[in-house]
Amino acid sequence: MTSVADLDTPVVTVDLDIMRDNIRRVQAHLARHSIGNRPHIKTHKIPAIGRMQMEAGAIGITCQKLGEVEVFVNAGVTDDVLLTYNILGRQKTDRLMALIKRVRRLTVVLDNDVVGRELSEAAGHAGADVRFLVECDTGFGRTGVQTPDEAFDLARRVMRLPRMHFEGLMTFPNRDPNTRDFFERALALFKQAGIPVPVVSGGGTPALFTAQNFPMLTEHRAGTCVYNDAMVVSTGTATWDNCAMRVRATVVSRPTPTRAILDAGSKVLTSDLYFMKGYGHVMEYPEAAVTGLSEEHGTVDLSACAERPKVGDIVHVVPNHCCVVTNMVDEVYGVRNGAVEVTWPVAARGKVR
Amino acid sequence: MTSVADLDTPVVTVDLDIMRDNIRRVQAHLARHSIGNRPHIKTHKIPAIGRMQMEAGAIGITCQKLGEVEVFVNAGVTDDVLLTYNILGRQKTDRLMALIKRVRRLTVVLDNDVVGRELSEAAGHAGADVRFLVECDTGFGRTGVQTPDEAFDLARRVMRLPRMHFEGLMTFPNRDPNTRDFFERALALFKQAGIPVPVVSGGGTPALFTAQNFPMLTEHRAGTCVYNDAMVVSTGTATWDNCAMRVRATVVSRPTPTRAILDAGSKVLTSDLYFMKGYGHVMEYPEAAVTGLSEEHGTVDLSACAERPKVGDIVHVVPNHCCVVTNMVDEVYGVRNGAVEVTWPVAARGKVR
Repeated sequence: MTSVADLDTPVVTVDLDIMRDNIRRVQAHLARHSIGNRPHIKTHKIPAIGRMQMEAGAIGITCQKLGEVEVFVNAGVTDDVLLTYNILGRQKTDRLMALIKRVRRLTVVLDNDVVGRELSEAAGHAGADVRFLVECDTGFGRTGVQTPDEAFDLARRVMRLPRMHFEGLMTFPNRDPNTRDFFERALALFKQAGIPVPVVSGGGTPALFTAQNFPMLTEHRAGTCVYNDAMVVSTGTATWDNCAMRVRATVVSRPTPTRAILDAGSKVLTSDLYFMKGYGHVMEYPEAAVTGLSEEHGTVDLSACAERPKVGDIVHVVPNHCCVVTNMVDEVYGVRNGAVEVTWPVAARGKVR
Repeated sequence: MTSVADLDTPVVTVDLDIMRDNIRRVQAHLARHSIGNRPHIKTHKIPAIGRMQMEAGAIGITCQKLGEVEVFVNAGVTDDVLLTYNILGRQKTDRLMALIKRVRRLTVVLDNDVVGRELSEAAGHAGADVRFLVECDTGFGRTGVQTPDEAFDLARRVMRLPRMHFEGLMTFPNRDPNTRDFFERALALFKQAGIPVPVVSGGGTPALFTAQNFPMLTEHRAGTCVYNDAMVVSTGTATWDNCAMRVRATVVSRPTPTRAILDAGSKVLTSDLYFMKGYGHVMEYPEAAVTGLSEEHGTVDLSACAERPKVGDIVHVVPNHCCVVTNMVDEVYGVRNGAVEVTWPVAARGKVR
């Protein structure tokens, strides 16, 4: 069996024990509150890990792009998929209809009439039926209708179109008090009109352990929690020991007493900074700061470190955002106790369409 | 022939006429000043484009990773490659030696003794000879020796090791006055010791059109200038009309009168912000600001726009940093006058090792 020490750097490893515990913890938490667990596979993009999540009790998976759905459906991971994206344009609606015919339950979201009309038309041509959730912007400021009235009106307009079936509401991420207020008001409108809302879908890893505060949620979508990362640790819902993904890197240069350069740059760690101060957490040197990245270099400030690495030393970096790191590499190595147990191609990497 | 209008979004296109003019302009400028043009292929990662640069008069190419050298050597693009990276570790030194035996001229850089010793040892085992430049940090604060004395001392120590051949000095990027001062002082030390310095290699696209201000440069390495991007435009050395790379994207949502959401997020445009205010320049709506990216969504503020796009409209975004966009996609489309003339796999994408 290959030793982790034999993996050339930079390389992305996933600790299999930590990941298994993460999957169990998430499933147990949502089950305790009778909320369906619909993990977002964008974090790992690996069918084998999706299967582990399904076996642990997930009700289905979430995908962000059609290309991801195709990879996971082709791999037979599940027959219940939520695609949380406005699908527009003939090429994509054709692909969507082909998928709908193959999967027991494939639901999409939409936040505008154009998408509703295009889906209805494509469904008519294909002889398919489309289940949809209305995406609600409950404070994030990205996609989604802006008010409960808009959600209700859009749902009613689109459900009247041929072959379009209203299934419920969706948001990202859950946030108190906005999300609860938004959903309560929207659900009251649907109730008054006698329209059932079987699905209310929340999302986000930072929102995972407070999902029970939103009693209307029937399911929750979280991605990052399968691995965890520096962003999640900063929110207090995980510790470094819960972070399964590590970027194994080599110190290739020590130009000054306080500077180290790693062979992992933005081409592995990415420039995702969020609200963090650095570009990742160096496990062996917790006082070190990854102050800058260029494509192939990570610049580390060692000023605060009593012990400092030398050229050729190996370090392990927990990235700020594990989902985007996944998308940078062709394979991820599943490791346990210093041994490489499995090499996973990142099958849905780069599926931008 | 496929029309550009038939390309599903998000998709990366390269205008072939603009790129051809960019290649010619760079070559003509450096030739005028008798500076060798050694384009950095990390920007395009496509052998066919490397061949265009060679045919235009480049003396060779620059690569940042061994995996890139392998792709370009296998494609037969050139027999003169500079690998501007400290190569460390048995797996990489073995690969390097195999390449050195196949290529007429493959030069590496180093900035420390550990790399020098490992290369010498590997060269001994392989029966190969290693040409090296000493990397100098002339103000950028990344890799490189810190002073002219260090450059001289390191060069002398490593050139005494078996099979190691000193070829010269290298920096990234050229910056006045530091780079000139550093090189002048270093070259004086080598001259005094009677050690020839055949190569002095400068780099950087923003530094390209002032390369002649560094009379010691024998060659210049620039990558971005083959496409250009918002960063280059901001430095004043290119206009939007010189930007060959565009990310073609669809407006998938218009949640508010001032907000548009594109189907291109950080998985295409990347989070590289540099010192820019937004995440790219929307050609059709120059007053628009790409204020945020998540993986699959680009958030655009239309407040300053008189005309505003509707759901389903197509826009073209010039990214902040074209090199990193290249690395996100499996293929790039070469277009001319609205037609797709060529589809290039990004052959050296994801070569992190």
